Amino acid sequence: MNALDESVKSAVPSERPLGPLPAASHGPGDGAAIPPAGGRSVEGRLLGRLLEYLGNPPLEFVLWTGERIAPAGAPVVARVRVSNRATLLGILADPQMRFPDAYCEGRVEIEGDLVRLLETVYDSGRSSPQHSSLRRLVERLRRPHVNTLSGSRENIHRHYDIGNDFYSLWLGESMAYTCAYYPSPAATLDGAQDAKMDHVCRKLRLRPGESVAEAGCGWGSLALHMARHYGVKVRAFNISREQVAFARERAARLGLGSQVEYVLDDYRNIRGRYDAFVSVGMLEHVGVDNYQSLGEVIARTLGMHGRGLIHSIGRNRPAPLQPWIERRIFPGAYPPSLAEMMRIFEPWDFSVLDVENLRLHYAQTLRHWLALFESASGRVRDMFDEKFVRMWRMYLAGSVAGFTTGALQLFQVVFAPRDNNDVPMTREHLYVR
Amino acid sequence: MNALDESVKSAVPSERPLGPLPAASHGPGDGAAIPPAGGRSVEGRLLGRLLEYLGNPPLEFVLWTGERIAPAGAPVVARVRVSNRATLLGILADPQMRFPDAYCEGRVEIEGDLVRLLETVYDSGRSSPQHSSLRRLVERLRRPHVNTLSGSRENIHRHYDIGNDFYSLWLGESMAYTCAYYPSPAATLDGAQDAKMDHVCRKLRLRPGESVAEAGCGWGSLALHMARHYGVKVRAFNISREQVAFARERAARLGLGSQVEYVLDDYRNIRGRYDAFVSVGMLEHVGVDNYQSLGEVIARTLGMHGRGLIHSIGRNRPAPLQPWIERRIFPGAYPPSLAEMMRIFEPWDFSVLDVENLRLHYAQTLRHWLALFESASGRVRDMFDEKFVRMWRMYLAGSVAGFTTGALQLFQVVFAPRDNNDVPMTREHLYVR
Repeated sequence: MNALDESVKSAVPSERPLGPLPAASHGPGDGAAIPPAGGRSVEGRLLGRLLEYLGNPPLEFVLWTGERIAPAGAPVVARVRVSNRATLLGILADPQMRFPDAYCEGRVEIEGDLVRLLETVYDSGRSSPQHSSLRRLVERLRRPHVNTLSGSRENIHRHYDIGNDFYSLWLGESMAYTCAYYPSPAATLDGAQDAKMDHVCRKLRLRPGESVAEAGCGWGSLALHMARHYGVKVRAFNISREQVAFARERAARLGLGSQVEYVLDDYRNIRGRYDAFVSVGMLEHVGVDNYQSLGEVIARTLGMHGRGLIHSIGRNRPAPLQPWIERRIFPGAYPPSLAEMMRIFEPWDFSVLDVENLRLHYAQTLRHWLALFESASGRVRDMFDEKFVRMWRMYLAGSVAGFTTGALQLFQVVFAPRDNNDVPMTREHLYVR
Repeated sequence: MNALDESVKSAVPSERPLGPLPAASHGPGDGAAIPPAGGRSVEGRLLGRLLEYLGNPPLEFVLWTGERIAPAGAPVVARVRVSNRATLLGILADPQMRFPDAYCEGRVEIEGDLVRLLETVYDSGRSSPQHSSLRRLVERLRRPHVNTLSGSRENIHRHYDIGNDFYSLWLGESMAYTCAYYPSPAATLDGAQDAKMDHVCRKLRLRPGESVAEAGCGWGSLALHMARHYGVKVRAFNISREQVAFARERAARLGLGSQVEYVLDDYRNIRGRYDAFVSVGMLEHVGVDNYQSLGEVIARTLGMHGRGLIHSIGRNRPAPLQPWIERRIFPGAYPPSLAEMMRIFEPWDFSVLDVENLRLHYAQTLRHWLALFESASGRVRDMFDEKFVRMWRMYLAGSVAGFTTGALQLFQVVFAPRDNNDVPMTREHLYVR
């Protein structure tokens, strides 16, 4: 736990510090069934089994009856209040979807450290025996319910349609919605986003006068950085109308309109030859089935001396995205394993030159975003509603936990056409100036 | 072409500088059929088609008749003399096997730059149309003849049974038979081998008092380096009796017998827990089918804070090893693609932290080896015979070409158990001291 974590915790006003429970909640709740003397209720026993399966994480559950379920001994990191039986049964049946949903809808309250709570969830079951029947049961319960997706359209705010005003509240100056790079632990978010862009440009060895194709440019900050600081010409592709409008306005304001062209089009329509290809944070939305055609686009884009970089969230091994994130936050997103990413490169004989895993940098980036988000949560509530605030808090905190527990990785992959021998012998130039 | 290439070329006494052909060979050879007036012989036409298919590489062939086949225009980099019709027909039928075989047996002579000749061979067909029937024919001819392997046991010297005296003639002081690391282009072979071992130790973040398991330790130099310079205890596994005897003697001489234990056993028999796992240049001999069990060995060897490094020759995409190398030099060897390497890591939830491609370093290492080999070729001839000298020259020169053309890659992969958050945030510590 570092200083930043503490600052994030204290910046989360809705997460009260974990003190002793009020006296009233130690007994049975109003109108609730009294648990059997000396024992647990049926619901309590089921919840106890789930927690046991999860390796007895240091969490305390308080039921609507006042019944408390917690592991013996170790101090708890968070307390979860469940408001009624239906909510608990839902969580027991499908914890990965129903727990965050219940939190967003206020049917579950959390006291204490949300990130640490979610870290225990991400680690869940990993220390349990491999083949217990309970494990198989829970695995089945945890499986994403893909088939029901189309049947139950939820009234959610689509991720990229939310608007620039919302994102500008918590992304910092750079408006970069991707993993930053922290040269030192004390770096600020804006400093780390600048450092990330430099890191990318150095890995690509950009030289003045060169041309760059960018696939998926967000609000345009990397394209502007490349043009300003490395003297290259950039054509940056994005299918989000709002982001492109924002980026064009920014380029014009900085007088970089002649060096940077934002194209409102799909990356598959990139035409012409470029010295470098770069894509930061788009691959998560491409889908493994399209990797070979992404590779084809890159192959026809780069000449023999070209270089490329793809930056993406990934996994240690193929796995579906956490189902709540997939259904509520990023419909259709999929972070690939490294072997899956190779389907971009292998069919086209690209040489992978360098892979860097920036997992811990993304955890830090997300802590910074979460702190800014909490500072602005009043304004977010005014723009949307309390449910929206809770949904985004759950998503950001869960993402911190995903990266700190290694459920998620961040891969930066540098590659070049096989024939390109004009690549640096060492990576020293990235670090020694 | 750099200075080192030139020094290697001039160190190859058997490769005469490429001058004009002696007058006698401009005409038909003794007793040979005179080619049809104004045209080529049947053999010449077939060879011409093969060369056309290969993209008309800048090579000149001189047949036993004196007939010359070369592309119009461009100056040639090497001249190939073919001594008789049977040799030529063999090369036309199976160029990848028969050309190097004929060279080793003296039925083909090469004048000029052997490495450049082999680079054109490695690049062969890559610029040709994808689907020509000629291409399909040649692809078929180039396929390794795995099925005939057991049927035709050649009288070859097995790779690792040749003896320490032979290898010590050209591997340099370190006796490291793996890719070196050149911090600068001017580094010597011994300096670059030392730098490689430091690079590996830094990537593993070795700390005094830690324990390391090494799988496939060659003549023991890395284990000694780790013990001497990083204060760790090493158990190093190797199934080569001669290498282990050499390594033990070295450790005793350096007074490191209590820190380094060389174990004459298979890596699958590694037992106990270690802080780090390292394997440099063994994976090529493991076979993809065994990658998952290699991963299992590593998983049970490393504790939660463990780190690992695997260094191996690789490919941009799955492909069989060049068949002559596979049959004559490294029976059963297979350099994997990165996606194939992931079969070690993915089943065990390892996080890949860093991949560095050292392809151009291996080309440089091999140039140094080739130069030393040529300097010692008289002694090698005395120890073995001329055929042996030619076979090793072909292998070393072909390997230079494999790495310079990108047919071969060298991957250094750093990984850790998923739970290990005690990993450096950046790679700066590898470069800034």
